[in-house]
Amino acid sequence: MSQHRSLIDDHINAWVKALPKGGLYAPMAYLMGLPAKRVRPALVLMGCELFGGRAEAALDEALGIELFHNFTLMHDDIMDAAPLRRGQPTVHEKWDVNTAILSGDAMLVMAYQLMARRPEVSALFGRYALEVCEGQQLDMEFEQRDDVDAEAYRGMIRLKTAVLLACSLRVGAAIAGASAADSERIGAFGEHIGLAFQLRDDLLDVFGDPARTGKQQGGDLRAGKKTILLIRGLELSALNGRSELREELAKPADQRDVTRMLNALRALGIREEAERAVQEEEVKATNALDAVAVAEDRKMPLRELTAGLMTRSY
Amino acid sequence: MSQHRSLIDDHINAWVKALPKGGLYAPMAYLMGLPAKRVRPALVLMGCELFGGRAEAALDEALGIELFHNFTLMHDDIMDAAPLRRGQPTVHEKWDVNTAILSGDAMLVMAYQLMARRPEVSALFGRYALEVCEGQQLDMEFEQRDDVDAEAYRGMIRLKTAVLLACSLRVGAAIAGASAADSERIGAFGEHIGLAFQLRDDLLDVFGDPARTGKQQGGDLRAGKKTILLIRGLELSALNGRSELREELAKPADQRDVTRMLNALRALGIREEAERAVQEEEVKATNALDAVAVAEDRKMPLRELTAGLMTRSY
Repeated sequence: MSQHRSLIDDHINAWVKALPKGGLYAPMAYLMGLPAKRVRPALVLMGCELFGGRAEAALDEALGIELFHNFTLMHDDIMDAAPLRRGQPTVHEKWDVNTAILSGDAMLVMAYQLMARRPEVSALFGRYALEVCEGQQLDMEFEQRDDVDAEAYRGMIRLKTAVLLACSLRVGAAIAGASAADSERIGAFGEHIGLAFQLRDDLLDVFGDPARTGKQQGGDLRAGKKTILLIRGLELSALNGRSELREELAKPADQRDVTRMLNALRALGIREEAERAVQEEEVKATNALDAVAVAEDRKMPLRELTAGLMTRSY
Repeated sequence: MSQHRSLIDDHINAWVKALPKGGLYAPMAYLMGLPAKRVRPALVLMGCELFGGRAEAALDEALGIELFHNFTLMHDDIMDAAPLRRGQPTVHEKWDVNTAILSGDAMLVMAYQLMARRPEVSALFGRYALEVCEGQQLDMEFEQRDDVDAEAYRGMIRLKTAVLLACSLRVGAAIAGASAADSERIGAFGEHIGLAFQLRDDLLDVFGDPARTGKQQGGDLRAGKKTILLIRGLELSALNGRSELREELAKPADQRDVTRMLNALRALGIREEAERAVQEEEVKATNALDAVAVAEDRKMPLRELTAGLMTRSY
């Protein structure tokens, strides 16, 4: 991973350095220059190596995926009116909304340019890029709706988060010339890993130890954010005649008793249910990886990645 | 042209009908369904036929160019806070800004999907798409600057308007298998036609007969919009010690004496200068078309188009 990391960082830094100054390009350079984990470009390289390709052969597409991801962040931050991204001012705060719209548009075009070397790669990319837009649209719609169930929530996070991990792996696989069946398998691995990651994130926000997660415990609950835990909590409360969650959500966010909400979720068995859901996705991811028709030693880096995600601690 | 028109309209209508309902897609269907001249998709078909291709073979790419154009309109209207587009409410007015951002993003992705059948087409498209973003960025920057000269203005309208006409023709040419030299020539034709069109638009706004143009005379002057006429008017006023334009621009827009501004421009010879600039672009366009290495009868539709633009009346 650390070898991939330096390949990716060098490639991103060289790209940023070569950008024209000012105008549309300064916000791209700023956002791409903020410290980030670079999970998606790493998955492109890992997808390529899994099928016998060289990581170096996939660097442009890895950069393209990271550019696309940052384009979605730039536009999502406008839509969410978010002041901070990675601890720094968002582009629409540091510049203005119009600049963030237009610079984001140009980033999407530049991402496409990097995906254009192979028609099968740009076809994969286009399909998944549209799904990511659909996921963001559902996320915005769900904020206005009260009838979102757990199934719909999973569908939304699948589109908004998980499919781009699948896309990253499949782009790498395509560069290495993987078979159609293996491409599907590694895509399924990526989606299930992505779902497990997001569901665990929701779980850590509610039940994680703030000293370990670095976040305020129950921040999502206080904000009334309809994660799968709150959705299932409300469903089970209705079935069991409990009203704590509904009562707390009726209050303004700054008057909510988060401890009371946490206790209600615990009493309803939501923690165990969510943990099972994460495990289920991890098992599906492992099964998909098992089925990929390459030698076991090639799969080690992805198995380590999965194990790392599985043990992300409370 | 009318035969192209019905091919294009049928193709757009079928595409709109096949869109999923609601969500991201309703704003696309709305904007693409508003009455429009469809100049750019017609140029794709004409570029294809010029080099011996069939118009039908270029319909997907023609639709892709029109989708891209409408994506730019959707986002530009947000940036300009425009209430109306083609006489109807803009997408961000009819829905909201977030929907207009996201639906526009998805339109750009869908435009790319339509351009992806041929790598040389998607490469052309990517290059010009980025230039269009740069043109919009310059347009926004110029509104804040007082030092924009005529050369910079032409550079901006070249990027914002003219290059997409060049792109349309070259995409059609690529589908028909035109040579690299002919592709450059038809691209130059498109750029000069585009510049002539935009410069004539600026001219008609100031000196056109409202009964013929359907617009209020001097609307750009009242708004203080820095078109090439006002830029040159201010330059020549400074050289000649005239102050009417500067004085009127110092007033709020609704108190400007447009007739006084018009008279100042006339006295400075701005009308004749702008007419020469339009003619120059038209001559360059004609020269570029002359140089294209195909039989003269194939060029007739584009010559008629040029003639139609040249005689757009006051």
